[in-house]
Amino acid sequence: MAERKYNFSAGPGYLPEEVIEQARHDLWDIRGTGIGIAEHSHRGKTYDDIVVETEAACRKVGNIPSNYKVLFVTGGSTSQNYMVPANLLAQHETADYLVTGYWAERSAEQAPLYGRVHRAFDGGKHNHTFIPSDSEIRYSENPSYVHWCSNNTIYGTQFKKEPKVPEGVPSVCDMCSDIFSRPVDFKKYGLAYASAQKNIGIAGTTLVVIREDLLDRNPRELPLMLQYRVHARDESRHNTPPVFPIYMCGLMFNWILAQGGVEAIARRNEAKAKIIYDVLDASSFWIGHARKDSRSLMNVTFRAPTPELDEEFLKEAAARGMEQMKGHRVTGGMRASIYNAFPERGCHALADLMRDFERRKG
Amino acid sequence: MAERKYNFSAGPGYLPEEVIEQARHDLWDIRGTGIGIAEHSHRGKTYDDIVVETEAACRKVGNIPSNYKVLFVTGGSTSQNYMVPANLLAQHETADYLVTGYWAERSAEQAPLYGRVHRAFDGGKHNHTFIPSDSEIRYSENPSYVHWCSNNTIYGTQFKKEPKVPEGVPSVCDMCSDIFSRPVDFKKYGLAYASAQKNIGIAGTTLVVIREDLLDRNPRELPLMLQYRVHARDESRHNTPPVFPIYMCGLMFNWILAQGGVEAIARRNEAKAKIIYDVLDASSFWIGHARKDSRSLMNVTFRAPTPELDEEFLKEAAARGMEQMKGHRVTGGMRASIYNAFPERGCHALADLMRDFERRKG
Repeated sequence: MAERKYNFSAGPGYLPEEVIEQARHDLWDIRGTGIGIAEHSHRGKTYDDIVVETEAACRKVGNIPSNYKVLFVTGGSTSQNYMVPANLLAQHETADYLVTGYWAERSAEQAPLYGRVHRAFDGGKHNHTFIPSDSEIRYSENPSYVHWCSNNTIYGTQFKKEPKVPEGVPSVCDMCSDIFSRPVDFKKYGLAYASAQKNIGIAGTTLVVIREDLLDRNPRELPLMLQYRVHARDESRHNTPPVFPIYMCGLMFNWILAQGGVEAIARRNEAKAKIIYDVLDASSFWIGHARKDSRSLMNVTFRAPTPELDEEFLKEAAARGMEQMKGHRVTGGMRASIYNAFPERGCHALADLMRDFERRKG
Repeated sequence: MAERKYNFSAGPGYLPEEVIEQARHDLWDIRGTGIGIAEHSHRGKTYDDIVVETEAACRKVGNIPSNYKVLFVTGGSTSQNYMVPANLLAQHETADYLVTGYWAERSAEQAPLYGRVHRAFDGGKHNHTFIPSDSEIRYSENPSYVHWCSNNTIYGTQFKKEPKVPEGVPSVCDMCSDIFSRPVDFKKYGLAYASAQKNIGIAGTTLVVIREDLLDRNPRELPLMLQYRVHARDESRHNTPPVFPIYMCGLMFNWILAQGGVEAIARRNEAKAKIIYDVLDASSFWIGHARKDSRSLMNVTFRAPTPELDEEFLKEAAARGMEQMKGHRVTGGMRASIYNAFPERGCHALADLMRDFERRKG
């Protein structure tokens, strides 16, 4: 089979080759049923088993407490921008948002349709180069919840630990780009969500981990499909779910467990990111976007001294089999996304080219 | 590779083996990019091409007029139950619903959140055994739109032609289970939608064909992801779309074209359904659910004289490699779903067993 490239895409991202192999097998015939995974009824025994196993593997990977529901909903994280306030925020209440990047901003923008929004931190004026300390956050008096985004793909910044939210207030986290990249104590969260296409599968489904008491909030009438409690009641099968994307999540959870779980994955992610950040730190040529204490282990953002050199670097990278590294239009430069499944040897390949390029152009 | 069974699932349904083969190849490496289809950025060149080609193939299959947008949105048809009224119905307006089955009922149930609902036909009291003639439908005075479901999977009934809606009123059709199974004149429709997992792909995306002027209806403020006009403006990529399910639609559209298009597919579907209906018509044992003039070419619903014999038949069918034929709980009996991709030889296998079973048990 063809050799595969180093794919630095920010999402949909790299999948482990063993996961792809399994999916290729199961598309034709899963578990000897004579029917492919994408063709099984979502009410049949085979999919029943897959749903149960996928949820169990997810709980094991994340050590998710028993008073939390694990849901696989349709759509991406963008759909959570309205699902969260629609389900948790009454019109007269206030929700606090920590605006630390592009996607956190998008989340804060959708909430005013459902209630009041207070920006407890707004990093826009600092060009989102850093993650605030707890003392830099100004919560409102009695927020309905605090929303934050644990990792900012575009700016390449990441919370090293959870922000300390006011006591009794649910912490709602968009974990889209760093879920299961490190151990997390879900007891500290009211709700966490992550679309699958970065660390836990492919585009088409979003994992929602929600503390059960939050299902009782009922701030307004909503269509059935937009109610977390309906997805919980119907065990993520109120309607035909995105069967293949959810199945892929199951393969990814098992892959993470086979790697030694999130603790082992976290050590690998630290090592992988260090390979690239070490080049930035030793360089007088490359310019990192994120402040050092706020650097993401998932997305390394950097640029050369000029946009022309960025272009040249991207071309050289592509010639060496390193693809999809162009930075987002709001930051320019490069973005190397190195999610769980991205191989360490790809980080070395990038670091080598960065050093070599600096020697020649610096 | 393992031999595959005859999969009569009502959805997710049977996929053509050549489509599965292509998908298996492309999951590893699509078009020599060295990156699998599920791992490509939705903003990159490869996916750009796929989106353009998929839409073009869809327009060709359906002969969709140029003043209609072709959208691939997230979720299933169930999400359209609220998207349709949210986008087309103002609170003081009335929408007419033709309630000809289970899913049409589900659609009608969600609309009152957004406006008034008038049931212009309600087949519930006849146990949904037939499709109304135009004279049996009582429209309201000035409906905002007329919603109907072209094929009722659970009851096995199907509109043979479009209901005649009042002039100037958009006809909104749930085509989930018979889209592209026969030629349709989309000019007669304001909006048509179909989740992919029956005739045009796998679960995880829904095709929406919408006449452009309907994008200008703006009855209320909505989150961006719930606005058809946003999906149209952003060419089905407002957020990360369900890349793999959309790609699968592209493969299916090309497969339909390779079969000779919807005209050829329609002839095959007629012939396939006839193989099974001929057994019902010649039988004094089997009981069909649908009235003869309303029979679906996609889902053949029938039962034996007793539930015990139904069970026995399903077991014998499974022993002969015919799977997922159990009827929905509301109808009982059997449901043989024979969508576009289901092979004719599977219909013969079922008809043979039905005749044989009747000989032994009748």
